Amino acid sequence: MENNTEFFDSDAFARHTGIVLLEVSTGRAKVKMEICDTHRNSHQTVHGGAIFTLADTAFAIASNSHGVPAAAINASIWYVKATAFGTLYAEAEEVSLTPRLATYAITVTDQDGEKIALFQGMVYRNGQRREARHE
Amino acid sequence: MENNTEFFDSDAFARHTGIVLLEVSTGRAKVKMEICDTHRNSHQTVHGGAIFTLADTAFAIASNSHGVPAAAINASIWYVKATAFGTLYAEAEEVSLTPRLATYAITVTDQDGEKIALFQGMVYRNGQRREARHE
Amino acid sequence: MENNTEFFDSDAFARHTGIVLLEVSTGRAKVKMEICDTHRNSHQTVHGGAIFTLADTAFAIASNSHGVPAAAINASIWYVKATAFGTLYAEAEEVSLTPRLATYAITVTDQDGEKIALFQGMVYRNGQRREARHE
Amino acid sequence: MENNTEFFDSDAFARHTGIVLLEVSTGRAKVKMEICDTHRNSHQTVHGGAIFTLADTAFAIASNSHGVPAAAINASIWYVKATAFGTLYAEAEEVSLTPRLATYAITVTDQDGEKIALFQGMVYRNGQRREARHE
Repeated sequence: MENNTEFFDSDAFARHTGIVLLEVSTGRAKVKMEICDTHRNSHQTVHGGAIFTLADTAFAIASNSHGVPAAAINASIWYVKATAFGTLYAEAEEVSLTPRLATYAITVTDQDGEKIALFQGMVYRNGQRREARHE
Repeated sequence: MENNTEFFDSDAFARHTGIVLLEVSTGRAKVKMEICDTHRNSHQTVHGGAIFTLADTAFAIASNSHGVPAAAINASIWYVKATAFGTLYAEAEEVSLTPRLATYAITVTDQDGEKIALFQGMVYRNGQRREARHE
Repeated sequence: MENNTEFFDSDAFARHTGIVLLEVSTGRAKVKMEICDTHRNSHQTVHGGAIFTLADTAFAIASNSHGVPAAAINASIWYVKATAFGTLYAEAEEVSLTPRLATYAITVTDQDGEKIALFQGMVYRNGQRREARHE
Repeated sequence: MENNTEFFDSDAFARHTGIVLLEVSTGRAKVKMEICDTHRNSHQTVHGGAIFTLADTAFAIASNSHGVPAAAINASIWYVKATAFGTLYAEAEEVSLTPRLATYAITVTDQDGEKIALFQGMVYRNGQRREARHE
């Protein structure tokens, strides 16, 4: 998990959004975000961009967990339920993996386990080893 | 534009992300975001969540510009080009409108007009007048 | 299952595409399609439209299984693996349900259980009972 | 246009669905489909799979028009208006193009120019020249 933790730690926007890494293993990741005032939109519910960012962060950690840099090329999100308070969790699961492309399903839930949003995304894996980028 | 400006001003997450409203008219909106350190991901490019939030904010302003509250139910984004510096713009255009559902296309470009991402989303319009919610 | 079978039987395009209903229960459906010459595209693999139609048919049966007419408003598909021979299966599962909107995940697999495509879609449920339409 | 016409002519599922090629140029394509009984779903409107197949065919022609094989990796569709009679048209436009990935927006309209569906998709371009495959 060490490299994955470093990967998350270097994600400035995730930290700016108040996201915390909970778990990571090959092809999987779980993150959380305690809802606060900065997350709300004009309807006083959690902004779609904040929910997306939470899911996208789990997606990035899971898709980069193989040690091969993976860049998101597409994502779709469905908002199931609006929410304004509490804690949100996003859990990413790998649903397909080929040398160049991989797909992930991310479920966003609240503190009661109720579904808030469903996210699915695809990455392009560029074949360079992540380690090489750190030298 | 006054109500639309108020609508944007009450969007805490958009402001937290450094988004500025440039233009709004019925069914259309344009916003910008000067890229700074907090927008970057672990690959040191702009985080997909920040790009999505920029597009989503233009989407929210355009879809709420009719004075009827509109809640996003779905959005898809395609990342065309990675970027790390400069200014990003998102412009939303209404592509369909029915009493209950409406669809918007949002294009994200950089300071040179190069496409960075394409976003398309649908809202559910709940038929309550926005004014009524403020009383 | 009787009403659901009638629902499927009245789907002309599904039958034209060679789709067969295997299973249906509330919020779930499974269909299959034996690949034949008419399903192929210019690359001689199964046409994206045929794969989508298979998944979309499972989606329609599952989302209409509650006895409330449900119309698709959006769907996204990710093609994981090209295929040209054998049998394809699509299995739909309900992932969220509210009075007006519901979301379904459909997985398309081949005869060996390999994933071919992932589909996610949302319906608008119009509140009229299906029975009423048949009178 | 000759190669593009051959490309379309070899698309068995498009022909099985009654699709006709109207126009093609680099990065663009237009097709049509006269609605008939086989296109309808259980609600007696045009099946989402038939509308998708129409759009997907324009997408395939446009994305393969550069002479480089392009395989769809993802597509999203938004259904704007149900329809049951008349003629549907799908027009594909290239919105981004890189050596490996390209994005297309397809608009489906009816005989009165009313929007029926919006489709956006991405292809993976594999770098082999199409001509080479025919030798």
